[in-house]
This record gives sequence, structure tokens and C-alpha cells, in this order.
Amino acid sequence: MPCPLCNLDARPADDIVWQFPHSVALLGPWQYYTGYCILVSRTHAVELFHLPDEVRTAFLEEMTTLTRAIADAFSPRKLNCELLGNQVPHLHWHLFPRGADDPDTLKAVWLALDRADRDESEKKRLQTSALPRSEIVARLRTKLKEMKASEPEA
Amino acid sequence: MPCPLCNLDARPADDIVWQFPHSVALLGPWQYYTGYCILVSRTHAVELFHLPDEVRTAFLEEMTTLTRAIADAFSPRKLNCELLGNQVPHLHWHLFPRGADDPDTLKAVWLALDRADRDESEKKRLQTSALPRSEIVARLRTKLKEMKASEPEA
Repeated sequence: MPCPLCNLDARPADDIVWQFPHSVALLGPWQYYTGYCILVSRTHAVELFHLPDEVRTAFLEEMTTLTRAIADAFSPRKLNCELLGNQVPHLHWHLFPRGADDPDTLKAVWLALDRADRDESEKKRLQTSALPRSEIVARLRTKLKEMKASEPEA
Repeated sequence: MPCPLCNLDARPADDIVWQFPHSVALLGPWQYYTGYCILVSRTHAVELFHLPDEVRTAFLEEMTTLTRAIADAFSPRKLNCELLGNQVPHLHWHLFPRGADDPDTLKAVWLALDRADRDESEKKRLQTSALPRSEIVARLRTKLKEMKASEPEA
């Protein structure tokens, strides 16, 4: 089976938040966590230590830049940065902003997302933000532009 | 309340795996994930982008070094690297090696750890490795020494 994260061109362009030199930021499905992004490495690698040093450093700086943009745009109480890859072993970060009004704010998101697997109304709740997806993408892009985050074809 | 991760001297010395220049590696409680470490920043900061650039780069390199040592020592199918801080907002990484024989290997660990909160036998299972804790620490230190990971008082 081809790696689903090696084929980002198949993604809807609307979901692409930012093209970094070493990674691509996608707006994730769970926008109850308003600003939730998935940051995908352009290089196919399974673990961070498989990347050449300078590529890894740049990739991690891009991750940090994106977390700052999410924080600036949506003022969460905390960012959760998770590199798992248990199902898709191609380096990608789940960047979840956690709100103070989330009743599960002290726990990892995966408990709620597991409920969403079995419960359609919970799924809908966790996919839905007070803002439309296009507005979330626009706010993130504005912050990234203000930060002058480098784009490959800027 | 004082920050519990600003007071690492109170930790049992046996649990300290490695002293890096910018972080301290502790052996975590859940050794069903054999080699599970918590890597604590020496600087008190809530988000990665609050660290000075050169400190953050070094902290993230130390995290990568530790994941490589865990992988070399215990050959997991995947590393999970998680910076959450929902309960303790002082930068620290949860580094979980995931085994192929874990029935929950496709999911984040937090579902199993949530069960352990309510179920004493599940808690015991997830705290227990086939190896004693002292042996796990010894194997990680051997790998880190081989990698010549820098220590502040090397």
C-alpha cells in the first residue's frame, strides 16, 4: 500500500494551511480543538533520528513556528504536540490546542477521539468549531505571514 | 503550589537515566512500554516557543538522542513522542516505545493508562516490564554512552 502521507497532492487545497520548506501543514478534522493541525514531513521517514540532522532541526523549527501561530490565533491554555505514527509511520505531528473550556482539558485528546469512533454525535461535536474551517485556515495563514514563516515558493 | 518539575533533586537518583545539558531523562512509571522515559526541560517554560532558539534546538536534539537510545536498546516498532503538559505545564516529553506485541499498538497509550486509573490490575500490568527497572536504566545508559551523548558533568 502506498504511504498516504507521501501523496499530499491528493489533499483538498483548502485543507493546506502552509507549505514549509521541510513540511506541509494541514488543517486536521477535529476542529473542536480550533486550529488543530497535522504537520507532515516532506521526507518519508519513520523516526526523527532517521532524518539528516539539518533536516530534522528545520522540521522541528517549523513545528514550533506552527504551534506559535496556532497559539497566537486562538489563545489555547496549552498546546499538545504529538508525534505518534502508530497507524501511519511517516513523520507527522498532531498539534492540538487545548481550550480552558474543554471538560477533558486535563487529559490527552485520544480518549474523546476514541469515543468519537463509536458515537456519531460525539464525532460531530469534535469535528465542529464555532468558526468555519475556511476562517480557521485564514487566521492561521495571517499569523504565519506576520511571522514571515518561510515558504518554499514565497 | 511549586512546579513539581522544577524540583528534580527530590527524585530518586535511580530513576534518573541521564543528565543532558538542557534536560533530565527520568525513567517513567509505565514500564510495560519498556524504556518509557520522561524528558524534563531544565528551564521552566510552558511552550516550546517560549524557549530561546538555541536552547530549544538543543532540547529537541536531546529528545531525539534519547529516542534513538530507547530504540537501540529495546527495538520497538515505533516511538511515540508527546509533549502535553495539560496537568503539569513545564516542558516535558513523554517518550513511549511501542511494541508489536502490544494489543493496543495502533492507538495512543492514553486509553490504556486511563483504564489503569480505575483498575488496579491494569495499573500493575502497565507498570511492569519483563526487565527490572535497574536493568532498563543500565541498558539506556550504555546506549547513551556509546552515542557519547553529552552530559553536563561528563
